[in-house]
Amino acid sequence: MKSMEWKKESLFLLNQVALPHKEEYIECKEYRRVAEAIRRLEVRGAPAIGAAAAYGFVLGARETVRQSDFREQLAVIGEELKGTRPTAVNLFWAVDRMLQVLRDNKECSNEELLDKLEAEAEVVAHEDSAVNAKIAAHGAELFTEPISILTHCNAGALATVEWGTALGVIRQAWSNGKIVRVFADETRPLLQGGRLTAWELMQDEIPVTLITDNMAGWVMRKNMVQAVIAKEHNIPFYVAAPTSTFDFSMKTGEAIPIEERDKQEVTHFAGHPMAPEGVDVFNPAFDVTPNELITGIITEYGVLRPSYTEAIEKLITKKAGI
Amino acid sequence: MKSMEWKKESLFLLNQVALPHKEEYIECKEYRRVAEAIRRLEVRGAPAIGAAAAYGFVLGARETVRQSDFREQLAVIGEELKGTRPTAVNLFWAVDRMLQVLRDNKECSNEELLDKLEAEAEVVAHEDSAVNAKIAAHGAELFTEPISILTHCNAGALATVEWGTALGVIRQAWSNGKIVRVFADETRPLLQGGRLTAWELMQDEIPVTLITDNMAGWVMRKNMVQAVIAKEHNIPFYVAAPTSTFDFSMKTGEAIPIEERDKQEVTHFAGHPMAPEGVDVFNPAFDVTPNELITGIITEYGVLRPSYTEAIEKLITKKAGI
Repeated sequence: MKSMEWKKESLFLLNQVALPHKEEYIECKEYRRVAEAIRRLEVRGAPAIGAAAAYGFVLGARETVRQSDFREQLAVIGEELKGTRPTAVNLFWAVDRMLQVLRDNKECSNEELLDKLEAEAEVVAHEDSAVNAKIAAHGAELFTEPISILTHCNAGALATVEWGTALGVIRQAWSNGKIVRVFADETRPLLQGGRLTAWELMQDEIPVTLITDNMAGWVMRKNMVQAVIAKEHNIPFYVAAPTSTFDFSMKTGEAIPIEERDKQEVTHFAGHPMAPEGVDVFNPAFDVTPNELITGIITEYGVLRPSYTEAIEKLITKKAGI
Repeated sequence: MKSMEWKKESLFLLNQVALPHKEEYIECKEYRRVAEAIRRLEVRGAPAIGAAAAYGFVLGARETVRQSDFREQLAVIGEELKGTRPTAVNLFWAVDRMLQVLRDNKECSNEELLDKLEAEAEVVAHEDSAVNAKIAAHGAELFTEPISILTHCNAGALATVEWGTALGVIRQAWSNGKIVRVFADETRPLLQGGRLTAWELMQDEIPVTLITDNMAGWVMRKNMVQAVIAKEHNIPFYVAAPTSTFDFSMKTGEAIPIEERDKQEVTHFAGHPMAPEGVDVFNPAFDVTPNELITGIITEYGVLRPSYTEAIEKLITKKAGI
């Protein structure tokens, strides 16, 4: 399963807002359509957003390649793409890689530059697939016997270019015979767990049980889950993430800006109101997990263990050495 | 605000499934309609279910009063009402009170018995209002300065006959000037927080902010809430409950049977599917809070503090003494 496909003239995005009821692709011929798709969450998940933005940048380059101020236009397009979601590190990182191509090729003709940009976008996307395969391999080693696992939101093929981070680990563990069942939090308000994770796993015929978010504690207490979440129940909690998702510029999670999204996401479902009209709403897009609750972070370089300050310093050294 | 009104010939129930979009009353002329309303959650909340069942019993008595096997019929009606929800202690307790009236009045004529049953149902309902007023007074004393508070589900006027348990405390604290704002968990899957608590508080013009359940941790971490929930954040967690809700027959919460409800509650909202067709679902109606996480239990006799084994033993003595 792939969340996007690049077909030279257009980027095709699997519309994640329409899933699981409609499997439709959005054809993006212009970079603005890609930006819109990111804003509307038609494409979502940090790695997927990064790759989509890189391809979006190529579309923008193609639209402006004949203009005399081509390079200035590209800087503006880069800013516009970066502005679509306030917190996705991969988004900034992917656009910065494209801008670096500009800086590295000052002598190129516009047409040559266009080819180089397209090649870089392809590298961004393929790197993501390769990184996920490594995360899956490292993560699956943690599963020494068959267990059930609980997931939140969607960190699957849909959230990446293909394969997935957390679901990549689960897919690999499943093919190793180490998964009994996946419990998927529905993940309000946008139901990425109910709509996307459940759908992805069902496509692969991996046993999945859908629960509402507030049932997670009960599922853990009843010992239905043996992995991924919660100190209180002495169950290990793992995060699967490519290092491109790490924001090395921050000392602690406290510095992360939390995106506040539209109230309608909480008050409505599929256009149907489910709360009193005019009710006040607080809708943070996510929260910050205190690091003392995390058992390990599965990356393409292996599994990080506490203390994370040290582990992340070592990781930076490792990355720099490659 | 009242969740029900008894008008001699019928019991009128405020339809909680239709709220907040439609404010409509269901007229129950027959006990079976009351039983159906309990099953469908048109009336919900432990104390409200108890009172509704008591009135339902009166309706059943009226339907069968001219039959020769009147008392046998009533025993069957009692069982039927008890079978509507598997876990509501108040339901069993209220029906048992009605059955006790039968046993206490063996010599009465059927017509006289009917009057006594109606009187008993009125007592059940009025006692609930009186108990809630006491809970509100005891609970409001805990609020020494203005704070924000987080609630889960609906323990308001709608869940009782009137006034409410947890919301009763909040209403009293609000009128004492001790509430800044209420954060209401929407409470999936049936959205009692989003539909009912938000609606009740807005009716009383108490400031309320709706959040999804998984945002509660974040709201606490951001210090937006100073009362009701969560050891992890060193925020006191109080339960407000009439002693009729205590199940003294159980040694620990482990013995509580957890009602598993219809899958559609999780997969659909207002008839609209929000999960893949055929997905497996686990839908426990509630869970059991470990007692070490509870700061205090606000009852009509005062606030119980740990250890609860001792506190509850003292409570039983107190109750017996009245």
